Amino acid sequence: MSQNLTKKFAVVLASGGMDSCVTASIASQKYELAMLHLNYGQRTENRELKAFNDLAEYFNAKIKLILDTDLFRRIGNSSLTDLKMVVTEADLKSKEIPSSYVPFRNANILSMAVSWAETIGAKKIFIGAVEEDASGYPDCRKIFYEKFNELIKVGTKPSTEIKIETPLISMKKYEIIKKGIELNSPFHLTWSCYKNEETACGVCDSCALRLRGFQQAGVVDPIPYKTQPNYL
Amino acid sequence: MSQNLTKKFAVVLASGGMDSCVTASIASQKYELAMLHLNYGQRTENRELKAFNDLAEYFNAKIKLILDTDLFRRIGNSSLTDLKMVVTEADLKSKEIPSSYVPFRNANILSMAVSWAETIGAKKIFIGAVEEDASGYPDCRKIFYEKFNELIKVGTKPSTEIKIETPLISMKKYEIIKKGIELNSPFHLTWSCYKNEETACGVCDSCALRLRGFQQAGVVDPIPYKTQPNYL
Repeated sequence: MSQNLTKKFAVVLASGGMDSCVTASIASQKYELAMLHLNYGQRTENRELKAFNDLAEYFNAKIKLILDTDLFRRIGNSSLTDLKMVVTEADLKSKEIPSSYVPFRNANILSMAVSWAETIGAKKIFIGAVEEDASGYPDCRKIFYEKFNELIKVGTKPSTEIKIETPLISMKKYEIIKKGIELNSPFHLTWSCYKNEETACGVCDSCALRLRGFQQAGVVDPIPYKTQPNYL
Repeated sequence: MSQNLTKKFAVVLASGGMDSCVTASIASQKYELAMLHLNYGQRTENRELKAFNDLAEYFNAKIKLILDTDLFRRIGNSSLTDLKMVVTEADLKSKEIPSSYVPFRNANILSMAVSWAETIGAKKIFIGAVEEDASGYPDCRKIFYEKFNELIKVGTKPSTEIKIETPLISMKKYEIIKKGIELNSPFHLTWSCYKNEETACGVCDSCALRLRGFQQAGVVDPIPYKTQPNYL
């Protein structure tokens, strides 16, 4: 079809986990991919980056951008109790995960994505946000993305049309997995474990949510685990 | 007055230039200051940082946060013509100013500020944005800040009340200077020159706008210049 020859670009925010993998599958049905990844000092940063690069290769991304930020760690470290602490230089070597929740985190990530999207001429930004995961995280809710789309309209050139797409926003984990199976998503390339970089632990929050999803979907997770408890 | 004993915190975004100086003066009338500065690889980064630190000391900021980002340079480098270029690692040593305008830049800066404000419990974020400067920069307009305030409402905890304040948004440069004189703003500590870090050049865009403002206000700019053309 000639449509394939004139495919437009879409930015896909990809952590390297299964949600972003399925999101990339969905986006790639209609768009060439411009894939964006953020290193923010997460414990399994190197493994996630490998997953991102593997996914970018799999989806034949035409362009990728890997950004580094110490913002979340810096903000996470400055809490109300540290009000008198003068925060100065970052310790870029620290691999510790931020101890505290970072408010408005997705606004930061989306702002970066919009800057990039306008620069490269992409009209869509895909993010694998899931409202179900949003307990206590106001910037994971559908209404937040609707409002953000309004902000983009007034904050970019009149000729610019950029819209954030959240295809998974109302789905459960097992539905995301079923969607991924349907689209032949390369789950074997993804990484979700917060703890290990070699073999997924199977017991951290992220592994547990993922494994339960696969078990509920009745599908075997293709990545190796140290242990696979029954989460049903 | 007892009001002074119970002053609330406000975040002030401060580049170290004269607009952020006057903005800090305005904010300090009602609030204790939490001052936020961003190093983004600008040519006079070190001199601006010194101005920021001098202002923070002058205003007796209770807390300050200095963030580093390579986002603007990275985004600025990836233009439509470089679509096939795979952008990988940052060159953190480069001091070059981004060659291209970075769209949605203020959304990035404000998002950082909101994350910090919610973390430290500040209820206001002051930014010295001026709509007059906004030619071609949609994210400098009043409507952008109004929309951003709506985004904050849906993107932060229900108990959180953070509002962005733009006290200079409708002012001309000379009005900002008059306001600063009225409030005893420490203009002698500020830095605006894009070119030099020792003595302001007097001829770059930023020096020209500043000097013209002082000349229009009929006030002598207290910082030294290599040359001071008549801009009236």
